[in-house]
Amino acid sequence: MTTEYFSSRRTIRKYKNEAISIAEVEKMLALAAEAPTTGGMQLYSAIITTEESLLKQLASTHFNQPAAAGAPMIVTFCADFNRFNKWCEASDAVAGFGNFQSFMSAVLDTTILAQQFNTIAELNGYGCCYLGTTTYNAPQIAEALELPRFVVPVVALSIGIPDDDSDKAERIPAKGFIHREKYADYSAERISNLYQQKEMLEANIKFVEENGKQSLAQVFTDVRYPKTNNKFFSKVYYDFIESQGFEWCR
Amino acid sequence: MTTEYFSSRRTIRKYKNEAISIAEVEKMLALAAEAPTTGGMQLYSAIITTEESLLKQLASTHFNQPAAAGAPMIVTFCADFNRFNKWCEASDAVAGFGNFQSFMSAVLDTTILAQQFNTIAELNGYGCCYLGTTTYNAPQIAEALELPRFVVPVVALSIGIPDDDSDKAERIPAKGFIHREKYADYSAERISNLYQQKEMLEANIKFVEENGKQSLAQVFTDVRYPKTNNKFFSKVYYDFIESQGFEWCR
Repeated sequence: MTTEYFSSRRTIRKYKNEAISIAEVEKMLALAAEAPTTGGMQLYSAIITTEESLLKQLASTHFNQPAAAGAPMIVTFCADFNRFNKWCEASDAVAGFGNFQSFMSAVLDTTILAQQFNTIAELNGYGCCYLGTTTYNAPQIAEALELPRFVVPVVALSIGIPDDDSDKAERIPAKGFIHREKYADYSAERISNLYQQKEMLEANIKFVEENGKQSLAQVFTDVRYPKTNNKFFSKVYYDFIESQGFEWCR
Repeated sequence: MTTEYFSSRRTIRKYKNEAISIAEVEKMLALAAEAPTTGGMQLYSAIITTEESLLKQLASTHFNQPAAAGAPMIVTFCADFNRFNKWCEASDAVAGFGNFQSFMSAVLDTTILAQQFNTIAELNGYGCCYLGTTTYNAPQIAEALELPRFVVPVVALSIGIPDDDSDKAERIPAKGFIHREKYADYSAERISNLYQQKEMLEANIKFVEENGKQSLAQVFTDVRYPKTNNKFFSKVYYDFIESQGFEWCR
């Protein structure tokens, strides 16, 4: 079976300098769209970008991280109620989707599509990388891709032919995130056991040293995901989603 | 290759009256956890529920829809910063994750895990159904599963041995959600072409009649996802997320 693939898959951040076929990617997206979607509504759009100057512009919205700047293609997956709303309008149906629940349904649909595409692409020998910056610079992405109202970028994947032999990412032991029947909260001892392996990895020890920190967790809180950044980009994304037509329920 | 699976998969809403192996499900969850996750943080928990009275209680939070009430197991996937925060505390790291960006990262991680699990389970012969009601009754689910602060239900899957020969769900033509380079907004004619096939399906024509509506879109706006419901459950979810520790950026 495909167990071998699922257990050994890894994210690819470096690609060969080779264009990849848009037609192939479209076929894989069509297959991915057989994945589950809320009420069959398919509340997403996928935008395939390969044109050089546009790709450069997109990469800059992803802070020119190598996985974006060095990719021959970026696929931007957007939560999309624009198409569905237009269908409602054309059908004398009064849509009431400008709210948080509807946005969340679209986010789930979009993420499911993206992950199904990621799996299909990897099974076909492509390498992919989720660009976590998509929710940071959504307004700039929207401008580059000319997104209309009710369309919000959620996930972007860079894709290409793998040219990267980095290690598989480490994971905590599965028992650490699986709970039986109800949630079993974590004791300090259990936490220490769960993250020990991760903390002892040579690459992570080096990472802590290079950043002048005392612990791996401090790299996450002080360097990679500091509170001030999180709060700043929260407001940017929140305001953008609202300006695209989804009202918050305060 | 597995193209055959991806093109023919379908959601299963009716299960045989047979228990399924928790150990098997745990193995599949462990495999699914090799899927991408934000910064390797694994911002999720998966709660496997099979105990009869608890399953009944959970099914009621999903409005006793048959896919939930008739399932031998429900797996609830939660956005989880509790575990990560506890690791930070234990590592003298000051976490700043009580905000919208962090919540969204956890939502993406959680949905990716759930979809990878869904694919692996289906490939192994299980049937699954996403319970879209998870974001509606999150406070009741949290109570049933004893979720602590910083843990929010996002997705629930019912799972079992398939006993359902329903048709594969219809999808709009893939060109309808795929855009090249930039977003190409929809003309009325294009919308009409995209949804025509869906509207002409016998099951959907019957569905419109049974609900006394004039169009398929009206079934979505007036019956399945009416604005008043969307708004009501938006406020419930929004307030719950905030009460779990994620501040909104107003």
